[in-house]
Amino acid sequence: MSKSFIGKACTSVFFILLIQSAFARSSKLSKQKSPCKTFTLYLHDTLFNVTNAANATSTAITNATGISNFQFGTLIVFDDPLTLDQHILSSPVARAQGFFFYDMKTRYMLDYQGTLNLMGADLMDQKTRDISVVGGTGDFFMTRGIATLRTDTTQGFAYFRLKLNIKLYECYY
Amino acid sequence: MSKSFIGKACTSVFFILLIQSAFARSSKLSKQKSPCKTFTLYLHDTLFNVTNAANATSTAITNATGISNFQFGTLIVFDDPLTLDQHILSSPVARAQGFFFYDMKTRYMLDYQGTLNLMGADLMDQKTRDISVVGGTGDFFMTRGIATLRTDTTQGFAYFRLKLNIKLYECYY
Amino acid sequence: MSKSFIGKACTSVFFILLIQSAFARSSKLSKQKSPCKTFTLYLHDTLFNVTNAANATSTAITNATGISNFQFGTLIVFDDPLTLDQHILSSPVARAQGFFFYDMKTRYMLDYQGTLNLMGADLMDQKTRDISVVGGTGDFFMTRGIATLRTDTTQGFAYFRLKLNIKLYECYY
Repeated sequence: MSKSFIGKACTSVFFILLIQSAFARSSKLSKQKSPCKTFTLYLHDTLFNVTNAANATSTAITNATGISNFQFGTLIVFDDPLTLDQHILSSPVARAQGFFFYDMKTRYMLDYQGTLNLMGADLMDQKTRDISVVGGTGDFFMTRGIATLRTDTTQGFAYFRLKLNIKLYECYY
Repeated sequence: MSKSFIGKACTSVFFILLIQSAFARSSKLSKQKSPCKTFTLYLHDTLFNVTNAANATSTAITNATGISNFQFGTLIVFDDPLTLDQHILSSPVARAQGFFFYDMKTRYMLDYQGTLNLMGADLMDQKTRDISVVGGTGDFFMTRGIATLRTDTTQGFAYFRLKLNIKLYECYY
Repeated sequence: MSKSFIGKACTSVFFILLIQSAFARSSKLSKQKSPCKTFTLYLHDTLFNVTNAANATSTAITNATGISNFQFGTLIVFDDPLTLDQHILSSPVARAQGFFFYDMKTRYMLDYQGTLNLMGADLMDQKTRDISVVGGTGDFFMTRGIATLRTDTTQGFAYFRLKLNIKLYECYY
């Protein structure tokens, strides 16, 4: 636990695994499956189009890269009202503030089973480093855990391969 | 759980709901309310101002957009020392590395009750898709759950409306 | 819980604490320490280099700032295949979509003990505001909690100091 830490390069990662194969179905811990709170809201997003500064609630802050037809790389910041019904002029009961970005390069055919959400510090000069699994959906509903990353190989800046060992400590299924 | 997944457009979302109305106060699960660990740190942030490259610990990496007076859209990356007392020259016991960005377009009058933190993959071609609620504050203290998104309507790139059905499975209150 | 909320400036923060000193070792709650699910994947990342648009799976969307030799401020978006073995041409069983960014300004000597991952809304005009601790590693393995932020001092845009009071409500150790 107590290693000397001389960062050669350190990054933060925030990413989402879209998982296809059900390669890990066993589960030990079972938790309650009915919600303790539930509610519905409508989010209204109006994109900035040069002329609507007063009404716009979201705007791109980076340009799409040229390597994809799917706006890959565009980062959009928003401050959107949420209402209890579908009308944009209803009084907002909440606001959603944050960002989304286009990170699908092309179309895939995947029979997907769920998602895992990961974030953490990637201390690249360490042989292995842990990042947090903070949530999941589908087969990975409400899961939490740790992903241990190891740089398996690297070719300058051109290519790298990471080995991810994912250990989930909280499972609903 | 096992749908064919041909993404028309896929984005990752990271956002925060600021919630005003206490429209969902019921709660089933009660957890311990005293911390298992607690400590205090001081974070020191020195913004890059063209002349202080050696001392600066944070810098803007995108420009503010013109649609707001509140630096809406500015993304700032930081690598800040944390100390046990208020002195910037004390020996750091931790570092905070990450980013923050300005995502409030204008001022609001809200009687707010708490926040929810969401992240996940928004597979837009799917009718409904789940993202993770990974934390909350205020009335939503320490909560976890799932938000099911449905695109309720869309007008080209100009406007879209999402229906959010939020189900919290872990509640402290 | 029900304060008037007139935002002077509101930001979202996503950050990671790299913690050196073991200043808080006490723990009340003990949880299971063996995973309920575990699996291994290989992630393949090919960086865009102007000529490889067809094969590239990641690309920078902001430029490095000049204040560091470590690409500080570069934000990279990726859509990487994950395979069950080390071969890049194996059939992907998952995709990793998201971003990472360089947020280490310089090298440090730290005997680090673990990390905490934080995200939340920083409503700067409020005296204190809570953000979520959504995960941790090392001494803070699998932890969750709340960080209460208070702006301790500020010098225009040049410098600010935050007081972080961190309370962890879920601890594995």
